[in-house]
Parts: sequence; C-alpha cells; structure tokens
Amino acid sequence: MKYYLGVDLGGTNIAAGVVDENFNIIAKDSIPTNAGRSIDEIVSDMAHLSKKVACIANVPLDQFTSWGIGMPSYVNPKTHLLVHANNLGWKNIPIYSYLKKYIDLPTYIENDANCAALGETLAGIAREYDNAVMLTLGTGVGGGIIQNKRIYAGSDLMGAELGHTKLVYNGELCTCGQRGCLESYCSATALINQAKRKLEISKKSLLYDMCSGDVEQINAKMIFDANNMGDELAQEVVRQYIDYLAAGISTFITIFRSEVIILGGGVAGAGKALFEPLSAKVAENTFAAAEIGVPPVVKSALENDAGIIGAALLEKYAQMR
Amino acid sequence: MKYYLGVDLGGTNIAAGVVDENFNIIAKDSIPTNAGRSIDEIVSDMAHLSKKVACIANVPLDQFTSWGIGMPSYVNPKTHLLVHANNLGWKNIPIYSYLKKYIDLPTYIENDANCAALGETLAGIAREYDNAVMLTLGTGVGGGIIQNKRIYAGSDLMGAELGHTKLVYNGELCTCGQRGCLESYCSATALINQAKRKLEISKKSLLYDMCSGDVEQINAKMIFDANNMGDELAQEVVRQYIDYLAAGISTFITIFRSEVIILGGGVAGAGKALFEPLSAKVAENTFAAAEIGVPPVVKSALENDAGIIGAALLEKYAQMR
Repeated sequence: MKYYLGVDLGGTNIAAGVVDENFNIIAKDSIPTNAGRSIDEIVSDMAHLSKKVACIANVPLDQFTSWGIGMPSYVNPKTHLLVHANNLGWKNIPIYSYLKKYIDLPTYIENDANCAALGETLAGIAREYDNAVMLTLGTGVGGGIIQNKRIYAGSDLMGAELGHTKLVYNGELCTCGQRGCLESYCSATALINQAKRKLEISKKSLLYDMCSGDVEQINAKMIFDANNMGDELAQEVVRQYIDYLAAGISTFITIFRSEVIILGGGVAGAGKALFEPLSAKVAENTFAAAEIGVPPVVKSALENDAGIIGAALLEKYAQMR
Repeated sequence: MKYYLGVDLGGTNIAAGVVDENFNIIAKDSIPTNAGRSIDEIVSDMAHLSKKVACIANVPLDQFTSWGIGMPSYVNPKTHLLVHANNLGWKNIPIYSYLKKYIDLPTYIENDANCAALGETLAGIAREYDNAVMLTLGTGVGGGIIQNKRIYAGSDLMGAELGHTKLVYNGELCTCGQRGCLESYCSATALINQAKRKLEISKKSLLYDMCSGDVEQINAKMIFDANNMGDELAQEVVRQYIDYLAAGISTFITIFRSEVIILGGGVAGAGKALFEPLSAKVAENTFAAAEIGVPPVVKSALENDAGIIGAALLEKYAQMR
C-alpha cells in the first residue's frame, strides 16, 4: 500500500492527514494557523503536524510517496517561487527550500481550490466522474478544474482562476484590483455585503434582529436562515446572489461541459434553498441547455477533507510543473 | 509521406484541400455553398471537390489517411448526429452516413473554429506554441481551444463555445436565445449594429457618407477605415468594441493562461487599429497581469487555409469522440 502526506494550509487552520492509495484518510489532525507569523514558524508547524499524523497512522516518514500541500496561492513554475498568499501575507517566497528543511520527501504545492476539486473527484461527490469544475464559495471564490481526473491549471499552470473571470462587465471593484470579477458577486463576503447594503436602506428585516443590530455579525448561514423564514430582504439578496452564481456557472459549462459542477465553502452549506433555484437558473441560462442538457450542480461531500486528500495525491494527479 | 483530405464547409463557400504530414497544402479549391440546398446536394459537392483536389495533387483517394470536415456545428458523440448548423438549416442530421456514400475513408467532423485554431497551431501564427485560444470574429464569434497541440472541446466534446460565454450580465439578447453572450458584443455583426444604432441618433459621421446613406452596406472594414480617418462616431464604436473584446479575452486568459490568443475572421483584418489598443486593454484588465504577464494577442496567419489544415489533420489532433 502506498501512503501520501497531505496538508491543507488555510488562513485559519492547518490540517494534515495520511492518505492511502485508495484515497482513505488513515489519520488526520489540525491546529490553528495563527496567520501573521513568520513563514519559518508556520512551515515548522506544518511539518510537525505532518509528522504527528504519520506517527498516529504508524507509517514511518520514509515510507511516504510524497508530501503535498494545498494553499491559497500557487508556485510560479519558472521561478519556483510561491507567488502570493494573500491571507498569509506571503509574496515571492522560495517555499520549497523552507519545506525541505523539515521533511525530505518529493514535495508538491498546489492551489487549495485545485486540491479540493481533485479530492472530490478522487474520493468525494464526483468520484464517478473524470471531469469536474469546482467553486469554493467562501471569503473569496476559488476555482478548480479537473480534466480526465487530473488538475487542469492552465497551460502555464497559473490559470483556472475562476473567481477572477469577469462576471459583470465594468462591475464592482474586486480585491484583486480588477472590476466585475465573479468573486465580487459570488463569495460569501459578497453575499454578506449585499445584505448589509440593503440593511443600510431599511432595517425592516429578520436579519437585523438575528444579528442583534450589529451587521458585522451577519454571516451566510444567517442570510439563508432568514430567507427560509420568508424574510423579504433576505430573499431578495439570495435571489440576486443565485442569479449571479448561475450566470458564472453557465459560462463554465459552456466552456468545459464538465460532467458535474461542485460547490464547496461556507455558502454551499445552505442546502436546497441554494441548490434548487440555482440548478433551475443554470438550466434556464446556459447555451444550448435544451439540446444537450446541463451537468448537475452538487454540494461537495468531503468538506475540509477534500483539501487534504487532493494535496496528498498531487504526486499522482497534478499537472506537471 | 502521409496525406490528409480536409474540407472547410461555410455558409458561403466550400473549400477543400490536400494536406501533407508537414501541414503543407498541396492542392486546394473552393466552390459556392449555395446554402439552402438539400444536405445530399451539398455533401455531394463536398465529396466531388475533395476528389478534384486529390486528383490535382495526384494522390489516389485510397492513399489518404483520412477525410476531415470543419463546419459551423458539431457532432453529438452519443447520438452521432450533427447537432445544429444554423446557417445551413441542418439539425440532427446523421451526417456520417451521407458522407460515407461518397468517400469511404476514416471521416472526422469538428466545429470550424476548432479546426481554424488547430490549423493555426500546427502551421500558422501559433506553430511555436502548444496552447492557444482562438476567436473568430465574423457573423458570429467562434472559439477554439488548443491544449498540448490538440483540440480541447469540453469533456463531452460539445463545449468550448467561447462565443456563448456571458460577457455582460443580463445583457443583450443573443441569436442563441440567451442574454449577454460574448458573440452579441464581439462579432462583426455586433460591431456593425453598434454603428447603425449610433447613426440612427446622428448622421454626422464619415460612415454615413461611406455607405452612401444606406446603413445596410456598412461592414467592419468601413467602420475601422472611418475610425482611422478620425471620425468620432466610428472611434466611439471601435473603442467600445475593443473594451468588450478585451474583457472577454481577459476571462479566457484567467482560465487558460494559454501561450497566445489568436484572432481570426473579418474584424481581425483591422490591423493595428484593433490590436494595439486591444493588447493594452487586455494587459490592463486581466487578473494578476502585473505579476505574471499576459499572452500576446495576434492575428491569424493562414486565413481560410487554417480551416482546411485543421480539418484535414483531425485524425491526428482532435480529442477522441
């Protein structure tokens, strides 16, 4: 049996796991990232956590095929530098040399949304499929494309940034500096901002009571809860959000015609209040849907484990860097 | 030496050629399509033209590796039916059985924009590259994606319809029935329609003189000519057109990060009045362009020959159906 070490490095938590060649997680654990610390401190924690799960799984370190890491950034294949990890404050970091100091295994780094998409396609909701598009709807919007069971990351391996495709021509300013990005309309942050804007105009909403008048406490779940209870303001926000998301998904279907569209991240937890109207809108708004249909839009199954499994299996399923 | 027969079936002309394994066209010819005739009449003409060029090239029919056909439609890999060729009036046609009646060679059918993209990547402007995205800016907008020197047509082989990705949220009604498609803003037709709309408001434009007051005579070349002569109305139309096209190209770069973006079709003939401002806009409007650059946006080199070469070589470079 082959074993793989995987790490999912997020802005909040570091999660690590031992994954076998059948994509089962044998052992896993997580610790807080405490973002803002130096790269050496965080890499040291990642390595120690990895060694800890290896120990729990009772697999000696030199028995692992590889060490894979998913993080909200990517490595430039020309310079081998980690390009930009926004929520860790890292930019142009020679990340491999930091990692090698602690664990000397073949090491792979990939964007976290790509890892999640791979994990879901190997072991999760899309395991029956070879081709999938995944969107993670959280603080931002991550995108992962799977073609023939492998990560597709663009021809220079720095593409597939679905969150920064243009959804609204000349639209809202995105955190990336461009206008109209999908992320500015379809992230959990965008959903929450829309609710806040509406509450500035009128406080006549359950949502205002649910957050006890402190709009900074509003989250995606609260908005969908209010929506489900028939709150008009929340329903308007959700309806508009779904409209935007459906338009984005329609474009990805028109390009990729993948077998399945997977949604992950906080917003995907909204259940059928999201997926039912969204699926209807996607079918209604996609080119040639009447003639050739549209793929199902489904919720990710593995939640945080998808990132660990995808990262662990990079050795086998990543595009070559 | 291997030889391949290729046909480019358009709404106006049928072009056929003999292509060798080094992507040289040995012989070619074309005849009018006379669209509106029965499928059997048009297929018969395609076959006779193919046999004629084979004869000119002095290659016996049974010496050809394959017969490839590019047309503005695609074959459903499940039903083997030609799905919908708008400008030929065909829908759900068992096209292979018509073709086999005339020429008994391994036969391949592919969308014409995919063939053009392949032709340019094998033998034209992108021959140095393995990964390209091509847009044909004509009556509509065709899209072709090349990954590792092969056509990428989506996982069910009916995707890559870049003309029907959404450019403007809830935008103009497209011929496909959806709203806001790239084609509705970036085709030659869209460019011409924008000029016509402006001329309805004010006739103070060189363009009005150039078409002798008959706006139905306006074409893309006329608009760019007026633009180059300093005509304000034409300049405003061109500026807006380039803005839309740049936004669409930015999205494709963000997804594919291909090595080159190729533009073909009538509008691409506009030269540097198109390409200079367009390239600047693409660099300005693309995610992470400052950090990782953007690929060059270039004019196709082979014009109509790209479709013949791409169609001819389908046997070797198409995705499997």
